[in-house]
Amino acid sequence: MSYFTGLGKSSGFNKTTSPVMVPFKSLIQVEKGSPTPVFVQLSNQLGHLIHTGILVPGQRLPGTRQLADLLGLNRQTIVAAYDEGIAQGWLDSRAGSGTYVAAHFQEIKPISLTSDHVSDVPSKHNMADRQPGYFFETLDFLARPVLTNQSVLQLDDGFPDIRLAPMDELSRSYRSYFRWGNLRQHFGYSDTKGHALLREQLSIHLNETRGLRTTPENLLITRGSIMGLHLACQVILRPGDVVVTGATTWSGATVNVLKTGATVLTIPVDEHGIDVEKLAGYCEKQAIRLVYVTPHHHYPTTVTLRADRRSRLLQLAEQYGFAILEDDYDYDFHYLSRPILPLASADRQGMVVYVGSLTKSVAPAFRIGYVVAPTALIDELARLRRIIDRQGDPMLEFAIGQLFKTGDLKRHFRKTLRTYHTRRDYFCDLLTSELPDVIQFGKPDGGLAVWASFDPAIDMELLAERAAGEGLFLSSGTYHNPPGQRLNGTRLGFASSKEDELERSVAILKKLI
Amino acid sequence: MSYFTGLGKSSGFNKTTSPVMVPFKSLIQVEKGSPTPVFVQLSNQLGHLIHTGILVPGQRLPGTRQLADLLGLNRQTIVAAYDEGIAQGWLDSRAGSGTYVAAHFQEIKPISLTSDHVSDVPSKHNMADRQPGYFFETLDFLARPVLTNQSVLQLDDGFPDIRLAPMDELSRSYRSYFRWGNLRQHFGYSDTKGHALLREQLSIHLNETRGLRTTPENLLITRGSIMGLHLACQVILRPGDVVVTGATTWSGATVNVLKTGATVLTIPVDEHGIDVEKLAGYCEKQAIRLVYVTPHHHYPTTVTLRADRRSRLLQLAEQYGFAILEDDYDYDFHYLSRPILPLASADRQGMVVYVGSLTKSVAPAFRIGYVVAPTALIDELARLRRIIDRQGDPMLEFAIGQLFKTGDLKRHFRKTLRTYHTRRDYFCDLLTSELPDVIQFGKPDGGLAVWASFDPAIDMELLAERAAGEGLFLSSGTYHNPPGQRLNGTRLGFASSKEDELERSVAILKKLI
Repeated sequence: MSYFTGLGKSSGFNKTTSPVMVPFKSLIQVEKGSPTPVFVQLSNQLGHLIHTGILVPGQRLPGTRQLADLLGLNRQTIVAAYDEGIAQGWLDSRAGSGTYVAAHFQEIKPISLTSDHVSDVPSKHNMADRQPGYFFETLDFLARPVLTNQSVLQLDDGFPDIRLAPMDELSRSYRSYFRWGNLRQHFGYSDTKGHALLREQLSIHLNETRGLRTTPENLLITRGSIMGLHLACQVILRPGDVVVTGATTWSGATVNVLKTGATVLTIPVDEHGIDVEKLAGYCEKQAIRLVYVTPHHHYPTTVTLRADRRSRLLQLAEQYGFAILEDDYDYDFHYLSRPILPLASADRQGMVVYVGSLTKSVAPAFRIGYVVAPTALIDELARLRRIIDRQGDPMLEFAIGQLFKTGDLKRHFRKTLRTYHTRRDYFCDLLTSELPDVIQFGKPDGGLAVWASFDPAIDMELLAERAAGEGLFLSSGTYHNPPGQRLNGTRLGFASSKEDELERSVAILKKLI
Repeated sequence: MSYFTGLGKSSGFNKTTSPVMVPFKSLIQVEKGSPTPVFVQLSNQLGHLIHTGILVPGQRLPGTRQLADLLGLNRQTIVAAYDEGIAQGWLDSRAGSGTYVAAHFQEIKPISLTSDHVSDVPSKHNMADRQPGYFFETLDFLARPVLTNQSVLQLDDGFPDIRLAPMDELSRSYRSYFRWGNLRQHFGYSDTKGHALLREQLSIHLNETRGLRTTPENLLITRGSIMGLHLACQVILRPGDVVVTGATTWSGATVNVLKTGATVLTIPVDEHGIDVEKLAGYCEKQAIRLVYVTPHHHYPTTVTLRADRRSRLLQLAEQYGFAILEDDYDYDFHYLSRPILPLASADRQGMVVYVGSLTKSVAPAFRIGYVVAPTALIDELARLRRIIDRQGDPMLEFAIGQLFKTGDLKRHFRKTLRTYHTRRDYFCDLLTSELPDVIQFGKPDGGLAVWASFDPAIDMELLAERAAGEGLFLSSGTYHNPPGQRLNGTRLGFASSKEDELERSVAILKKLI
């Protein structure tokens, strides 16, 4: 195309030289049978002439009639092509004097297809800069895949057995949502607090099982309990606030506390849960804004907070004015005949923010969590959620609400409770008989995992790695270590495996230890 | 039950008085035919005796054999009931000396059923305290319902017509997800960055339509574009950073910027978009960390950023090292034949974070948004998301990915583009002919709404209220006003209404004005 070059450089093109001097007839070729409309072809080719410098800023184009004659096209086609160029900013129309290449035109060009991909270009902007430290290290840990799907066997963190989930019922609920009802209501923007059916049904369920006596107004549906923790921390905490947690605790909560700029103080955890007298000592010395607890089954060690400590914790909250963030992540699985009621059920002063989840009760993909709190706080949490993800998934929220209503979910809870109870007993017997000298554990009253302390001589990282080699997923548990401590313990989830799978898993551990 | 009282108060009960003195035979009544196991009935009744003060802390209980004889029950039943009490923390077992009411026992009691609901108790903890100001006012606005579902007619913010969405195809995709494949892979925890199929398909779509040449590694799937904005602001910004936006802009972005503690500077917006020379002036005087733009169709005024300003903006970013947060919320709807490429397509230095959404392209309930950025930033965004909601909805992500793959989604895009194009023309003609003197507007090149400036004599709040009374949803537009200004303009979404609905909507406006 060297014959264009001379034209682009000719001095005449920098002024308003008569446009007929540009050989448009040879430069522009349109195909009338093409699926691309002729005016688009024309506009594209004019654009090309400008972008390659053949037509230059300020250059006057031929009149529409003149170009139509030159190219043998309808004048309206030329008008449409020029209009397009004007709309796109590379042509200018001056009243009474015709159409020009825009004087201000400097095109942005996509990066050449042969150049390196943008992801390989080190960004000149330090957008992702970060400091080292516990916050980021833990964030890194959390961001790792939890479980390799390739693992045949798993002793996980305490996951449900997805094979037991009421998939047919859920699938039917989804289908009915697509089939029936008002399209705009079903698929338009919806309530940030969650689907009305789910809030109503969940409220009933919480009142029946936990003695909470909430109404739908006290409920915010979230995406898993972690979103409840995130929102609560973001709304309640400010930089410099002091938060108390157990020395062993769930890192997902700690990281969410640290993200707000608050400081974490820890208190010991023994076989009866957190040491509330140590907390009382802290309270005498400084203002505590919030205490994070998992009283029903302490995470990760599964112990239940003793009755007197529960009373004392509530009393301290009232006395010193701190909020209690009660994370009741697996309440629905308790193997004593009479469940222990949550702190929230005895909260007379609005001190408790109660966070729960259904992901452990159905399957992790069905990300439904919730927060129970005084209405004023629920409203604030929803306001914040509005700028994070606006709302949940109405299809999912409806489907779960529907399964509460039909009773399918309660039947599922009863069925899985029985199954997990049996698996707990079976697994604990196996651990006792097969690994008596290397593992210490207490039979958990509830939840989906056993907390096992391994003989200090065992290198847990190595054990986890070797177990993976044998097709068994096992967490090294280093993630449960408080900073500077080595517990050499890990959670062994029993609920997601059938008896024969538990047997094979323990056999692998026995072989490796 | 007054005959219990004396027993509770008898001095003998505070020591280890012989337990047979308590009339267990009259106090405890079990029903053998009941669905509640006998040991549970027994345990519940013992608990009741303790909670009501008849048995007191430190009180010794009868031996299991002794109580079995007294009650005519099997000894194992008594053992089970005692074990339950020990597990629940209100009984203690002392080696060799029997079972006692726990010395440390102070029960927490659920709030009485007759007392006021917790939501009505003013919290003693100021958990939801907040300061007044733009941040919270705007948050309040955003938290309001967008659209009353009762409205028959709507001139909304620019929503798609849900009636056109490929619901049957989506429903089928959901069903196939439930029916086929590995349960653990489908319903276990999944990749925080999004479903692999969707990332792969979306990457192809973005490359084909926007000249971005991303790979799945440059992509984070989010829940709507707002989550992309939220994550980007949280990762990139620190308190005190300076961010530049248009003087009119999307409040959802501004609020997310302010949430980080950053400061916002604004620059004028005219018919060619933001005033980049004003930005250049700011850059000379201070460090700018990020510039938020909606260059394809400026929100709310719909104008396209002119070509020379686009080049200049990118050049300034490279020169001064600020990040560009490019929000391309409705790219897929552009009515010129040749779309204008995003800034991100010309980003050679990794300065642009590109945020988009499919909610406007399918239906708001299908909350799929995405971020395109250098891999290092994508990794940081995903880490943060890990502690917010952990992951998206794999069912939804799969369904949308599947519809890309089958071509259904592209057919849908083409169909809606044609329909919305027609509706735009029809609506603009209506506005011109029916409301010539009271509304000023420019025909938008793209998007789903017209930006209309109303005669300053018209009270927009009142108009919106009266329109609602006539069954027409219309935003007052006050939410678009920069602090201290009154634009008296609003967005009139035309895409979600059929021609006859547009006619009826305009007729209502004409009647009211």
